[in-house]
Amino acid sequence: MANVNEAFLKLKNDYLFSTILEKKNEFLSKNPKKKVISLGVGDVTLPLVPSVIDAMHKATEEMAKKETFQGYGLVQGYDFLIEKIIKYEYEKRGVSIDKSEVFVAAGSKGDLSGIAELFSKDSIVALMDPVYPAYRDTNIMLGRDNIKYLETNAENGFIPEIPHEHMDIIYLCSPNNPTGTVLNKEELTKWVEYARENNSVILYDSVYEAFITGDKIPHSIYEIDHAKEVAIEFRSYSKLAGFTGVRCSFVVIPNELNVYTKDKNKIQLNKLWFRRQSTKFGAAAYITQKAAEAIYTEKGQKEIYENIKYYKENAKYMKQELEKIGFTIYGGEHSPYLWLKTPNNMKSWDFFDKLLNEAAVLGTPGVGFGKCGEGYFRLTAFSSKEDTKEAVYRIVNLNFK
Amino acid sequence: MANVNEAFLKLKNDYLFSTILEKKNEFLSKNPKKKVISLGVGDVTLPLVPSVIDAMHKATEEMAKKETFQGYGLVQGYDFLIEKIIKYEYEKRGVSIDKSEVFVAAGSKGDLSGIAELFSKDSIVALMDPVYPAYRDTNIMLGRDNIKYLETNAENGFIPEIPHEHMDIIYLCSPNNPTGTVLNKEELTKWVEYARENNSVILYDSVYEAFITGDKIPHSIYEIDHAKEVAIEFRSYSKLAGFTGVRCSFVVIPNELNVYTKDKNKIQLNKLWFRRQSTKFGAAAYITQKAAEAIYTEKGQKEIYENIKYYKENAKYMKQELEKIGFTIYGGEHSPYLWLKTPNNMKSWDFFDKLLNEAAVLGTPGVGFGKCGEGYFRLTAFSSKEDTKEAVYRIVNLNFK
Repeated sequence: MANVNEAFLKLKNDYLFSTILEKKNEFLSKNPKKKVISLGVGDVTLPLVPSVIDAMHKATEEMAKKETFQGYGLVQGYDFLIEKIIKYEYEKRGVSIDKSEVFVAAGSKGDLSGIAELFSKDSIVALMDPVYPAYRDTNIMLGRDNIKYLETNAENGFIPEIPHEHMDIIYLCSPNNPTGTVLNKEELTKWVEYARENNSVILYDSVYEAFITGDKIPHSIYEIDHAKEVAIEFRSYSKLAGFTGVRCSFVVIPNELNVYTKDKNKIQLNKLWFRRQSTKFGAAAYITQKAAEAIYTEKGQKEIYENIKYYKENAKYMKQELEKIGFTIYGGEHSPYLWLKTPNNMKSWDFFDKLLNEAAVLGTPGVGFGKCGEGYFRLTAFSSKEDTKEAVYRIVNLNFK
Repeated sequence: MANVNEAFLKLKNDYLFSTILEKKNEFLSKNPKKKVISLGVGDVTLPLVPSVIDAMHKATEEMAKKETFQGYGLVQGYDFLIEKIIKYEYEKRGVSIDKSEVFVAAGSKGDLSGIAELFSKDSIVALMDPVYPAYRDTNIMLGRDNIKYLETNAENGFIPEIPHEHMDIIYLCSPNNPTGTVLNKEELTKWVEYARENNSVILYDSVYEAFITGDKIPHSIYEIDHAKEVAIEFRSYSKLAGFTGVRCSFVVIPNELNVYTKDKNKIQLNKLWFRRQSTKFGAAAYITQKAAEAIYTEKGQKEIYENIKYYKENAKYMKQELEKIGFTIYGGEHSPYLWLKTPNNMKSWDFFDKLLNEAAVLGTPGVGFGKCGEGYFRLTAFSSKEDTKEAVYRIVNLNFK
């Protein structure tokens, strides 16, 4: 009898974004003429930039000719892209990364969930609360029940404190989804020190890195001394270049990063990931990698950062207008996310329902990210300027008394 | 201390195709002027067909405009593709598939390895020997040690026999990689009956389906009565439309297929896979799905089957010429793979070395697919007509005495 992996049955049924979609559809079926503005799911809305479009057309033409056709790609990705990643994402920040340390793939969801497979089942996993739900679910699917939540809240400014207990795997997300907060050099240094002392591994999700303003906040965890011994960094083109429908990401696994056998022998995680990818992943598409490469020119950089600026202006506008009427807001400065304290201690889902039903604005209830998110609400800056203004106008005119 | 998942340490180090690549590079460094003809890795060489190229350009243009830009896709894939899959791959063979049963993804490697996560760790897994190594490795990574090998060999014509013991999960691959053999209606019926009696699940890998000639051999396992109760079918565009560098695949998980809890409660596997994909997979790219859709027109079908015909003619030519000089060959009729008995009981790797060093022809040693592959050798038909002829000419002129 084929038995189910019972770990999957421990997952909660209500996947946050499916519930939101259902509520939206219910609203629309009752109010077919209303225009719902979505500041919910963190999906981009601006089209791909011209440099990327040109590269995709060119790569398509290469695929049309026998002489330039590309079949199976290399597991880690093409050198042309890896070399650009090293130059543009790391060298310019004084970080030295070897080609063997970069793994190009088809989206951070697959990377983040895949890496978790490499650790032993009984690993102690540290997650922040609130947290991006896929971190939790992927660990539950692997049968882990040693999941510890590090609470972030108004008291600590949604910046996690260093745990007093031992943790094996630590998920850090900065700029943070959902709270929009960032870890500065001092905070990151504390985490790297903690991980070195505990032989822990930090899974550093910085897919929103492009939203960091200026150079004071580290753009890579490897700007911190010794981070290469303990941290894996996850990056994505989804928010950097609007690739949510194109699918490209990369992971850096430093060669000096080790995990341990029960007998305390060191195992290079980089080699293990290569082996895992060889068996379970079929490389990112050639056209996709050519599209990603295209952002690494002067013109490409200018174009993508103009789009990022557009979204950041949305965030700034929302923050400013909502603060004016008395909202307490985290994030929105180095991040496309605003994390609102709901007025009068409204429950997250009540606030969601009010915004949807009275303003036709869709956001994400904070409690969907964990119990510390109760009483909070996430808004994204990824809508158009016009829709963002209209949504703010609608919210500002609601009665919260 | 972050501990490794020790299941990964049970994997063999020598990944078959990496070893082949190393040997090839060694040969080339010693013989820099020789042209090595690869009949090794099953990668296509013909460019994408015009219908696909047109669709990719069009989809790229859609991504360039705000009005038609596509962000995150639906987890299961776009309806436009799923509807065509149902019509072209199933309805025309009298098989009825519901939209909710099709999951589009980015390559069968990810699908086949992902599905294995849904079953309990102590599942008894039946693999053929010889076998595509990723099936084995993905189960080892999941910590499974109940792997049973069903031997196929010259005596049973490389057609697996129904096991006398109970198996929970059965991997069937038809047309088979590496042996090129196919399961006919009678054989498949036996497997479906076995699975129904044992409450087993068949993972039916038919990514080479397009190479089946005529309608006598089933193109889908669902042509067998009751197969929807017990079988998951894996399909890919890699060989069907030359998408090895584009990455698109689909899986069919029938709604009536169940697995069981320890308490013998039924769990719908379809729902579980949806949950898994929602958490761990970020949808196939929009452009990729548009590219796949483009083969489902009269023009698209004509174009892709012309390419398949080209490869099949290579297979036919190789089979015919090598049989003439006394080789015993399996496959090559409904498959791009020829499975050769080596002459004079040469070991697979000795035959590999001889072909590489004396003829500069690259193939795959049968023993790389399991111990029953010892003394056999796989050749693929995916090279150009000219290279295929040249390779055969070189092999025919070797001295095997």
